[in-house]
Amino acid sequence: MAELPLPDLDPTSDRAVFRQIADHIRHAIEQGILAEGDKVPSEAQLMQHYGVARMTVRNALQVLQGEGLTVAEHGRGVFVRSHPPVRRLASDRFARRHREQGKAAFIAETEGAGGKPAVDSITITEERASADVAERLGITSEDHVIARSRRYMIDGQPVETAVSYIPAEIARDTRIAQPDSGPGGIYARLEELGYRLDHFVEEIRSRIPLRDEVRALKLAPGVPVFHLVRTAYATGGRAVEVCDTVMSSDAYVLSYELPAR
Amino acid sequence: MAELPLPDLDPTSDRAVFRQIADHIRHAIEQGILAEGDKVPSEAQLMQHYGVARMTVRNALQVLQGEGLTVAEHGRGVFVRSHPPVRRLASDRFARRHREQGKAAFIAETEGAGGKPAVDSITITEERASADVAERLGITSEDHVIARSRRYMIDGQPVETAVSYIPAEIARDTRIAQPDSGPGGIYARLEELGYRLDHFVEEIRSRIPLRDEVRALKLAPGVPVFHLVRTAYATGGRAVEVCDTVMSSDAYVLSYELPAR
Repeated sequence: MAELPLPDLDPTSDRAVFRQIADHIRHAIEQGILAEGDKVPSEAQLMQHYGVARMTVRNALQVLQGEGLTVAEHGRGVFVRSHPPVRRLASDRFARRHREQGKAAFIAETEGAGGKPAVDSITITEERASADVAERLGITSEDHVIARSRRYMIDGQPVETAVSYIPAEIARDTRIAQPDSGPGGIYARLEELGYRLDHFVEEIRSRIPLRDEVRALKLAPGVPVFHLVRTAYATGGRAVEVCDTVMSSDAYVLSYELPAR
Repeated sequence: MAELPLPDLDPTSDRAVFRQIADHIRHAIEQGILAEGDKVPSEAQLMQHYGVARMTVRNALQVLQGEGLTVAEHGRGVFVRSHPPVRRLASDRFARRHREQGKAAFIAETEGAGGKPAVDSITITEERASADVAERLGITSEDHVIARSRRYMIDGQPVETAVSYIPAEIARDTRIAQPDSGPGGIYARLEELGYRLDHFVEEIRSRIPLRDEVRALKLAPGVPVFHLVRTAYATGGRAVEVCDTVMSSDAYVLSYELPAR
């Protein structure tokens, strides 16, 4: 058997053997010794190389799969995943200074990180608010909302679907109800309409994706989604938008700052 | 066949059939018509009741499983899950006014929500910092940290494991290195030592759990975990703690406030 590009175990380490094996393979991926799409050494190869039981090797491979570094293809083996760039979402991403530069948050951030942003599947409808959206917006489910659906891509890879709900009373017959909402996006339009934004609240859940989400986001097996619902509040406390998003968990790290005071 | 406690489809609805079916079952669960541990009507029953194809029923059941409302037990059917209370984590959970009441955040919040909090599996070691922890704390991986591991439970159900890393230079021979860190927890102790806390940064990822996490958190199949890493910063900018946590995604909703200014 050909020599594997992996070191031996360190018997003096206090790190569990399966973690050491995962460390070696991760290091090989990070160094490019195992490149995107490459086959990871088989269970049999790893068992022989390290002199360990199959369960130990499986635990190691599961660590890497859990980290999103590899993907098991049934009957073919385990492969190094090709990755969309990870988008780090910071606490200040909706700060006015960004909005005033005329770009929507997604476009500005993705370009800033050297990626190529795109938005597709834009659909806009006027509909009755669902019970959940109505509650968040402080309206009734008799009231109408403008629903803006779209999908976000980075370098051609879908990373997020989102639906924004804005009270129809605010958005009907404005540019918010048009596919191209103009410079700075709908938050800039809301401010022009006199709804000066004060703060946002984001609620984050995580779960396994539904079938249509797997398709829309082209998710690899075993990749959960973030389900993030953001409510935008104007000065005075009125909720002016609810944005319901589903995000591929391996395209995003969410980052928030919390006060200690 | 006995009558199912489910309404008929609404052919005039613009909601997809599988979503209508999921809505009906969800409603029955929320109303207690289907209680914790009850068997959900079988695929065959649902196909007959609604007059739809098996794939439609499966899509409906997958919606509910994705929401964590049901769990499929191989060969036995689909059951309503028994749920730990969901802990909502707010942006102000580390505010000083909470800390000054002498309770650590987890205890205060869980009691506030009517749950019975417990902490177990507390272990404390002094060790060299990992590369990641060292980078976050602004120390070298030659430097030592005090590592406080523990598991959090609500009403006897494990919901989170956490390891706090504090520079040994700060925490060695203090109550931070004792199993009982005293009133208000380690953040209160850090402030007594002169490290007045200024803010926290939380980074959130989501992934499928590793085997040992499934065991430690008694996770149902298909429940991902949040991997949340929090860094605590003192006035002046020094990082004084890194807390690495793994949380059951169906025991938590994370909530954050973001500025618009």
